[in-house]
Amino acid sequence: MKTLPLALIALLAAPAAAAPAPAPGDVAWTLVEGLTTEVGQRLAGTEAEARGRAWAAKALKALGFANVRIEPFDMRVWERGTETAEILSPFPQRLLLTALGNSAATPADGLEGEIAGFDGLAALEAAPDAAVRGKIVFVWHRMGRTQDGSSYGPFGDVRRKGPSLAARKGAAAIVIRSIGTGDARMPHTGVQTWEKGVRPIPAAALATQDSDQLERILARGKPVRMRLVLTPRDGGIRQSGNVIAEVPGRDPKAGIVLIGGHLDSWDLGTGAVDDGAGVAITAAAAKAIMDKGRPLRTIRVVWFGAEEVGGFGGDSYRDRHKAEKHVLAAESDFGAGRVWRFDTRVGDGEAPLVKAVAAALTPLGIARGNNEGHAGTDVEPIIYANRVPAIGLRQDGTHYFDLHHTPDDTLDKIDRADLAQNVAAWATMLSLVANSPEELAPRAAETPTR
Amino acid sequence: MKTLPLALIALLAAPAAAAPAPAPGDVAWTLVEGLTTEVGQRLAGTEAEARGRAWAAKALKALGFANVRIEPFDMRVWERGTETAEILSPFPQRLLLTALGNSAATPADGLEGEIAGFDGLAALEAAPDAAVRGKIVFVWHRMGRTQDGSSYGPFGDVRRKGPSLAARKGAAAIVIRSIGTGDARMPHTGVQTWEKGVRPIPAAALATQDSDQLERILARGKPVRMRLVLTPRDGGIRQSGNVIAEVPGRDPKAGIVLIGGHLDSWDLGTGAVDDGAGVAITAAAAKAIMDKGRPLRTIRVVWFGAEEVGGFGGDSYRDRHKAEKHVLAAESDFGAGRVWRFDTRVGDGEAPLVKAVAAALTPLGIARGNNEGHAGTDVEPIIYANRVPAIGLRQDGTHYFDLHHTPDDTLDKIDRADLAQNVAAWATMLSLVANSPEELAPRAAETPTR
Repeated sequence: MKTLPLALIALLAAPAAAAPAPAPGDVAWTLVEGLTTEVGQRLAGTEAEARGRAWAAKALKALGFANVRIEPFDMRVWERGTETAEILSPFPQRLLLTALGNSAATPADGLEGEIAGFDGLAALEAAPDAAVRGKIVFVWHRMGRTQDGSSYGPFGDVRRKGPSLAARKGAAAIVIRSIGTGDARMPHTGVQTWEKGVRPIPAAALATQDSDQLERILARGKPVRMRLVLTPRDGGIRQSGNVIAEVPGRDPKAGIVLIGGHLDSWDLGTGAVDDGAGVAITAAAAKAIMDKGRPLRTIRVVWFGAEEVGGFGGDSYRDRHKAEKHVLAAESDFGAGRVWRFDTRVGDGEAPLVKAVAAALTPLGIARGNNEGHAGTDVEPIIYANRVPAIGLRQDGTHYFDLHHTPDDTLDKIDRADLAQNVAAWATMLSLVANSPEELAPRAAETPTR
Repeated sequence: MKTLPLALIALLAAPAAAAPAPAPGDVAWTLVEGLTTEVGQRLAGTEAEARGRAWAAKALKALGFANVRIEPFDMRVWERGTETAEILSPFPQRLLLTALGNSAATPADGLEGEIAGFDGLAALEAAPDAAVRGKIVFVWHRMGRTQDGSSYGPFGDVRRKGPSLAARKGAAAIVIRSIGTGDARMPHTGVQTWEKGVRPIPAAALATQDSDQLERILARGKPVRMRLVLTPRDGGIRQSGNVIAEVPGRDPKAGIVLIGGHLDSWDLGTGAVDDGAGVAITAAAAKAIMDKGRPLRTIRVVWFGAEEVGGFGGDSYRDRHKAEKHVLAAESDFGAGRVWRFDTRVGDGEAPLVKAVAAALTPLGIARGNNEGHAGTDVEPIIYANRVPAIGLRQDGTHYFDLHHTPDDTLDKIDRADLAQNVAAWATMLSLVANSPEELAPRAAETPTR
């Protein structure tokens, strides 16, 4: 037992066999508390993520799961370096920012340039290359809070597409207003991928406050010069992996119910909300089913690796497991807020099993949503490959993007009551799907979104 | 006009003489917006604070004040360097922290040591020196929010006294839980002064989240090793100064009403709330009085230098101006929250003028407090030297220590309606004190608190 994560030892140290099992919400809390405390940040492909996998495998074994294993895969690692920004004129001052994933590096002593500012991607797109060439492009926007997180789609394009667009136009570097909300002065990192043929440039996100400051400074009408120092590096090809644990079903032919979240995190916070909560919620729900006896179908819990940097864990899972029969795929990767809606993406959104799940979730305060649900980055590859039915237990994301990809993604942001409600919702759904003789109908064939 | 701060040009560019004067709340906003945008952070004794003084002198002249001048003084400057902390074992991870004022430096490649943790100053005090010697002392606490900010007194002693206490006991360094509240992962800096005979050691504050994380890690029961890198430096003797502006009174013998705040800020934020708001509120209130015609008494607005690092501006003011007759001293240095209470510290707390001020403030939602008021660090020296009557317009500080001395002290944290209420409260008070033939009675002699 001496190699068990310490928090789990305490959790499992209930003295007598007759002692009640810990409440599922407490199991989830213990997992996310342990993972964030004993491992901390878990950037994909790094030694920290590897420690996370070892911690996870031990923890999942300690909870009694079967077939606990790590499925490794290789990936190219990008690692953050120094990151500072300084306005040189007309009003010298430091601004807070953080490099975006796959950002190129500046020279070690920095890159100086004049700011070319744009209110949104369309304005940058419309600008003549001559207005951008050799400059530090700055793109701002006005992302606001939404309960369902839907603002992340359109505003997130500033991060996803802005760097390649700026590079194509000959910019020396790009800084964007962080893709995030909230009052704390925190830059939000996140991945972006260079379009084919584009030469990478330094790319970073300013804290929203610093972006607004730069906007105010530009509005004074004088040329603004900035020095950027960003020294990320290519860490080469290294190993990531998915951690898998199962509750074996009574009928091996009844298929697999795939649930999980991602183990890796960005490097700035401790990955409590993104996605320590998700892996903890789904594992705790699976354990709650396991504690009630063997289900009809196998429940497979996957703590995916390398989601943040490109969804590599989900791709690897699909490649290894596409021959297996999956009856459901569902992921928890939107923080620790209460579940408020039940979406599906199945062949028949009015099927009796769907209605049964909806009815069972109602007492938890969860309303039936639609059949256009999004399943989660990690499970999408297997879903698209095999037309796997998907369920989305939608969490309240009003404040999710306050913390998302910032140093502020830490354990204190998780409300234990909300976490417990998530576990209850997942266990309720799992109990029905894993035990019902009825199968959800395969969804329509679709083209992957990435 | 071309050397005027740009925001003031806009403010003053009202086309016709008949145009109404800008609302006092707008004047305050324009000042704090301009100062934080066009200067940014203003660490005492640095080139940035000097730019702040130049900006302030121009802005105050542009507003029409008389006798605008800078009164310089020398001071020893402490400047922040690199600051990182890393747990080496048992759970390797970075923690966020910031050096405290006057912290010594570690070697450039860091200082390693075992953590000796203490729940509060008393526990550190009680520990045998052998439990501390050569170790990195870690002191935590549970400061919570209070409307009047009174928790800053007792909990702040962890910062004020902890470093000297740890050094006296032979500690290699000290890290404390930030003296602050709030949910954002921000370390709070602040000054501490080494006791006589104590050899300075590296001293820093962890973000509350990181402190709680370290507490959790210590609670696992294994020895915890940390590497600290803190490279602040002694910047030598340099110049700071107070910026002074006046509304001359009709009767030179009627004395001076001294108001103001401090111009310097800590270096992490832009000093919007601490104390851009205070200098803006008091200047805007004085301008509102000036705009109504010459008052009986002279109103002197002082934007003090070097408050944060030891109250040097207040000492310099006392030394230069103690021969002058001051009839009141009042300071705004508690953020930008609404004024909710009117305190005094005068010879007769029931005097007609006090009652008149109290009555005039009631419609603004301000209740009469007590006659035990605190006046503000910058005006205390002249108050103690000359028994100057003091008024405290107490601001709501429930969230003040969420931001205090952190990178989060930025313009977006100021609510314009609250700012305008502050200016109205100050103008109401000033109008009565500066124009009343009645003088506030000198307060009792007291021993300075510092």
